Amino acid sequence: MKVKGESGKRKRVQSAPTVSPAVMQQPAIVLVRPQLGENIGFAARAMANFGLTDLRLVAPRDGWPNDKAHAAAAGAAFLIDQARIYASVEDAIAELNFVLAATARPREMVKLVLSPESAAQELRQRGHAGERSGILFGPERSGLDNDDIALADAILTAPVNPDFASLSLPQAVLLFGYEWRKSESVPSLGRVTGFDGPAREGIAIPDTRPATRAELFALFEHLEGELDKTGFLRPPEKRPSMTRNIRNMFHRMGATEQDVRTWRGIVAALARRDKAKGGKVS
Amino acid sequence: MKVKGESGKRKRVQSAPTVSPAVMQQPAIVLVRPQLGENIGFAARAMANFGLTDLRLVAPRDGWPNDKAHAAAAGAAFLIDQARIYASVEDAIAELNFVLAATARPREMVKLVLSPESAAQELRQRGHAGERSGILFGPERSGLDNDDIALADAILTAPVNPDFASLSLPQAVLLFGYEWRKSESVPSLGRVTGFDGPAREGIAIPDTRPATRAELFALFEHLEGELDKTGFLRPPEKRPSMTRNIRNMFHRMGATEQDVRTWRGIVAALARRDKAKGGKVS
Repeated sequence: MKVKGESGKRKRVQSAPTVSPAVMQQPAIVLVRPQLGENIGFAARAMANFGLTDLRLVAPRDGWPNDKAHAAAAGAAFLIDQARIYASVEDAIAELNFVLAATARPREMVKLVLSPESAAQELRQRGHAGERSGILFGPERSGLDNDDIALADAILTAPVNPDFASLSLPQAVLLFGYEWRKSESVPSLGRVTGFDGPAREGIAIPDTRPATRAELFALFEHLEGELDKTGFLRPPEKRPSMTRNIRNMFHRMGATEQDVRTWRGIVAALARRDKAKGGKVS
Repeated sequence: MKVKGESGKRKRVQSAPTVSPAVMQQPAIVLVRPQLGENIGFAARAMANFGLTDLRLVAPRDGWPNDKAHAAAAGAAFLIDQARIYASVEDAIAELNFVLAATARPREMVKLVLSPESAAQELRQRGHAGERSGILFGPERSGLDNDDIALADAILTAPVNPDFASLSLPQAVLLFGYEWRKSESVPSLGRVTGFDGPAREGIAIPDTRPATRAELFALFEHLEGELDKTGFLRPPEKRPSMTRNIRNMFHRMGATEQDVRTWRGIVAALARRDKAKGGKVS
């Protein structure tokens, strides 16, 4: 069964019924526009080495299924068979609560940067708290682009030699998988509420949960739609970076489902004022 | 210059005179009877990723030099050029003080077993104490044989999934190199835990700075003032908790000065719409 969320729709996507609770706590490995089938196969092997099983592919360059991916995976071919395919990154991560972007190059964005070790511990904790997470890995040649990275809560970077920083796609997956397995013994500290340190110690947040990506995407569409009407997002050439910055702020705050509803209300309230007076703004 | 000790003699062999003290503290990566030139090249890349430079080859199957090794190494080809070639494992490790054998399968031998993490720390300490160390990696198909392993002080094993334990030769080198670099005392990313604490060094903040509380307070007043006009913050008894929640979200995002200006702009844009149409909202 494939889980395909639709970005922009306010929809809670159910996970596949066959996914066990143990697997549910695992991060999804999301290969974004992977180029070589061999690398997909090797990435699957690296996942199998460390017990990761949730492989997702966004628009693989050579289509799907891919015989080379299957052959290269060898004993991990079952992960290739199970892989879920998506047309967009937004769809691939729609039901996830926390998303990392693997990139060696921190861009001109304000994002938390995690090492594989701290990323594994962070995702382990969030898994204990019932959150679902995933990691975006970019195409071999170019890596993730800024729009991909803007969808993530934080950046995952391995501490490589700056003079020789190139890691292959399967190697990047391997290093995370290795730390993921090492973090098995990390204890649950209770509810995770975002990046707010003290909350990690176990402050209960009643009646809410981390927002899903689909909920956030719907908020973004709402807010940006209203801002478009005001002309705030002009000139057009600046709109992509402006919306990316706004989205990044929401990702960084670790928004809960309640937070998203609050913001939907705020945007609606501010935008509604003129309508209440009978005005109409196209 | 090649350093070739004689096996069986407890003799301290001097390192090559061109080797710097920093390199002297590095473990040698000893590929024992490697089969594929490509894997030698990939292993060299994995070394370069983490600043390891002492590559030694024992009886490479396809002879030496090896064009495929050179090509696969890409930017790390200098390590291939520098590699030292030996006829036997004994010769390759003659001047070393402490040797690990990388094998996924602990044999019928009483040997200390180290993870990549503890191995890196162990070798780092020994390097500080002036000892020279090395790690044996076996042929791709069969791995190290018992005679090779018997030469080592301890076994290096990565914590892989027992159901899928096969690591490629370059992957095994990569995992050790990764831990080697992590074990540098002057590090690295360290544990990054949140936006609010000392972890701020983990966040890349381009061209801006964290917002001051005064800037945030001004934003709150602006936003709440506009929301009051819309009736969003009613009933009055709920206003304190509603504004607290909104303020908390901004605190959690670790807002920068630029973020605050963006939000001031958003609030102004949304609130201005009716005025642009000539409406007046009290």
